[in-house]
Amino acid sequence: MTLSPITPGSPLRTQVSGLPLRIARSTLSRQGSATSTPEFHRWFAARLARARATVVTGVDFADLVGWGFDRDTGNLVHDSGKFFCVQGLAVTTDHGPVASWSQPIINQPETGVLGILVKEFDGVLHCLMQAKVEPGNAGVLQLSPTVQATRSNYTAVHRGRAVPYLDLFLSARPESVLADVLQSEQGSWFYRKRNRNIVVEATGDVEVRDGFRWLTLGQLHELLAFDNLVNMNSRTVLSCLPFSGPDLLEALGCDGEGFRAALVRSIGSAWGAVHTNGEILSWLTDLRSRREVEATPIPLREVRGWTRGADRIAHETGAFFDIRAVAVAGGDREIDTWSQPIIAPHGLGVVAFLAARFTGVLHLLVNARVEPGYLDFVELAPTVQCTPESYEHLPARARPPFLDQVLDAAPDRIRFDTLLSEEGGRFYRAVNRYVIVEVDPSEVSEDVGPSRYRWMTADQVVGLLRHSHYVNVQARSLIACLHSLVGGSAADPVATRDGVR
Amino acid sequence: MTLSPITPGSPLRTQVSGLPLRIARSTLSRQGSATSTPEFHRWFAARLARARATVVTGVDFADLVGWGFDRDTGNLVHDSGKFFCVQGLAVTTDHGPVASWSQPIINQPETGVLGILVKEFDGVLHCLMQAKVEPGNAGVLQLSPTVQATRSNYTAVHRGRAVPYLDLFLSARPESVLADVLQSEQGSWFYRKRNRNIVVEATGDVEVRDGFRWLTLGQLHELLAFDNLVNMNSRTVLSCLPFSGPDLLEALGCDGEGFRAALVRSIGSAWGAVHTNGEILSWLTDLRSRREVEATPIPLREVRGWTRGADRIAHETGAFFDIRAVAVAGGDREIDTWSQPIIAPHGLGVVAFLAARFTGVLHLLVNARVEPGYLDFVELAPTVQCTPESYEHLPARARPPFLDQVLDAAPDRIRFDTLLSEEGGRFYRAVNRYVIVEVDPSEVSEDVGPSRYRWMTADQVVGLLRHSHYVNVQARSLIACLHSLVGGSAADPVATRDGVR
Repeated sequence: MTLSPITPGSPLRTQVSGLPLRIARSTLSRQGSATSTPEFHRWFAARLARARATVVTGVDFADLVGWGFDRDTGNLVHDSGKFFCVQGLAVTTDHGPVASWSQPIINQPETGVLGILVKEFDGVLHCLMQAKVEPGNAGVLQLSPTVQATRSNYTAVHRGRAVPYLDLFLSARPESVLADVLQSEQGSWFYRKRNRNIVVEATGDVEVRDGFRWLTLGQLHELLAFDNLVNMNSRTVLSCLPFSGPDLLEALGCDGEGFRAALVRSIGSAWGAVHTNGEILSWLTDLRSRREVEATPIPLREVRGWTRGADRIAHETGAFFDIRAVAVAGGDREIDTWSQPIIAPHGLGVVAFLAARFTGVLHLLVNARVEPGYLDFVELAPTVQCTPESYEHLPARARPPFLDQVLDAAPDRIRFDTLLSEEGGRFYRAVNRYVIVEVDPSEVSEDVGPSRYRWMTADQVVGLLRHSHYVNVQARSLIACLHSLVGGSAADPVATRDGVR
Repeated sequence: MTLSPITPGSPLRTQVSGLPLRIARSTLSRQGSATSTPEFHRWFAARLARARATVVTGVDFADLVGWGFDRDTGNLVHDSGKFFCVQGLAVTTDHGPVASWSQPIINQPETGVLGILVKEFDGVLHCLMQAKVEPGNAGVLQLSPTVQATRSNYTAVHRGRAVPYLDLFLSARPESVLADVLQSEQGSWFYRKRNRNIVVEATGDVEVRDGFRWLTLGQLHELLAFDNLVNMNSRTVLSCLPFSGPDLLEALGCDGEGFRAALVRSIGSAWGAVHTNGEILSWLTDLRSRREVEATPIPLREVRGWTRGADRIAHETGAFFDIRAVAVAGGDREIDTWSQPIIAPHGLGVVAFLAARFTGVLHLLVNARVEPGYLDFVELAPTVQCTPESYEHLPARARPPFLDQVLDAAPDRIRFDTLLSEEGGRFYRAVNRYVIVEVDPSEVSEDVGPSRYRWMTADQVVGLLRHSHYVNVQARSLIACLHSLVGGSAADPVATRDGVR
């Protein structure tokens, strides 16, 4: 960031207040001024045909180029010492069914940049999105932010091409920054990883490079209903836009009794919530001060219960995930051919919010979740976040709370239901079913397991997204999905999987 | 915390908005309903006479009871494995004059409770404060919060007496909690220590035990002008009260051109600020994503440049601080006789905010400071925070920015100036001169060293105090001191050391 000097006596400013309204306008704009939706689909299909030339092959660890196991620690590291490494983590906890374990985990101490460049066309904000190949992507090609770059990327450790548009983020003027916050990623797979989620508004001309397109938020919201199309990085950056506030009630319209009106009231803050913001913060303070988990980095060699084979490190039960190695040839990344370690999770996950109306205002049932890789012990997570097949052979009482309410939900209660992938640069086909199910408040007790759930409005969650350490990456994805339901017509507010496709 | 179930259909609530006004009323109340100020001074003098019976003696490490050096690591640990330990920290940084060092540091992985109980008398909030002996206190006895307890304290690891009033905090109803946030402590002496800063309002009768008194915020503010009277824990909890917001402008009165009026406009948010909240957060995000410091716990045995003698661990230059051992006899703590390790810093520190009016609104010059013990790399600190004697033999360019502006300030520019101690349970006579100096904006450039300073209003700093990781303990103390200037009369707004005593 460049830093503008301030002038003594210059007029003071309050928070730029028109932004939520501009976000709303872009959300309601289902037709882009820069790229029509049919045009986008034709373009994406053509890119996909090209991307399918990319070959991703599972290889033995011995065949990785530039990566190897450290002689002392057994960690899987890059020769440069940069990028990331796979090491071990020893975990003890007094929360949850297992009191201690060790596991492999990715340590990526750099802070990357996930940036969306926005610009007004015909008075409507558009986002510059990129069709990008990642080795782990389900479907090979997905829609990513303008920039997704680790520091090793852009300091060119791997001698790749320069990252397009990056400088627009690193040298943005303060008043052009619409969102800018460090957010955590998967705390079960990453040790304290965070990326900088940043949205910058361009005022001058911006060259649209090959592989990029301008889309409104409304267009992106429609694309969120397609399986494995909008990637995780796009979703998390979108969730950090300040799309909340009392101004929005009139702009978006909240008349009537439908789901959409209840959602709009949840985004506008004027109606209040079941718990005040202060009560939510106090609840989190209480949980965090218990320090229920202790996670200590250890050499990968010392991890117990995991076995290293020629081409994978796997848990002895076959559960959880494997550490694998992949080689990539072709495609259009910065370097066309490379190999790398990758995490391959087992099974299809379920990531779901239960939602309910209180006094006509939609609330989400948020879970205070402990994951060993979080910097601050506890983050707000979806109501359900698990892999159901891991629980199939366990007794009923071991099942995650609310899972059956999600899996057995009647179709007319399902507000959102799409398969979406986690980050394809580190995770191999890590696909979750993202679901929002509306329930009657009386069907749900917050006091389950024990008192780790709270009803919160969308406005409350988005308010916390201005800060680090509060909302986990799965919940952020679901917030982007929830916002995508604002653009639906009041008459037909429900976007189900079958309905949209 | 007990958790009240919510009732479907129950009325929604917004943030309790009357609280800042109630804080203002207590701030303006310089006479308590429960304890008059002269009565307080008589009572405190009597307690002090008793407390002087407490004998704190420097002893050899070999004479510590229940503490010893671990055979393998050389760490100084308690036999129970609880409380805290003195271990080593290896630090590398690309910020500041020294690229790498190692040092002893206190590791206290528990989260303690610092709690002030408040209650209305005659419609005015009073705080239940305790006169408490700590071995490191300058002046032996200081005024502490209602409760200051580590988890080892209240789970009775050392078989002490029960902590009075603790249960009122641990089982408070959500709506009676006025502030509740984990805050960091000294990042140069503590490894990632945080305490829970909590204020709870009592509605029922509260027995006033021996050693406790009810005082208004206005009374506490007057006591802040006395050297070494209000302890660090009291100051940090007071700073976390939500004493800001537009409602306050009328209640406190901000007419006129004086310092106090500018301060009140800084507390009320309606006037805006030089930088928006979003710009401040983006600036911090940028600095944090640089990860300028890496701190790794190491065995105390492996610390370089420090020597362990019979009664102290000291740096070979004699600078910084020593690790010492003290034995305590007498006094009125939970256990009357004990011994413990303690950090004894060298020299008198200076902790100061430069303040300036922009368009009639007071702003503080805040420094984004890196300390190795912070969980999130950077926190907002006072303009100046250092020990001047450490710089006496160094060239002028090595002097901390703005230090000379504080030390050479004309008396009529000094708004606050008091000697205050850091936590007497861990630090031996760690005294800082806390100063607020008003300057003309044109005398100061934010672009010093490089761009780690920003002008912020009191409202902006207090807003961030609702969350962890933002405002360091020295800045929190100064915020409490700044708030103490609100109660001054508009005609005589300046409380100088000489003026008040």
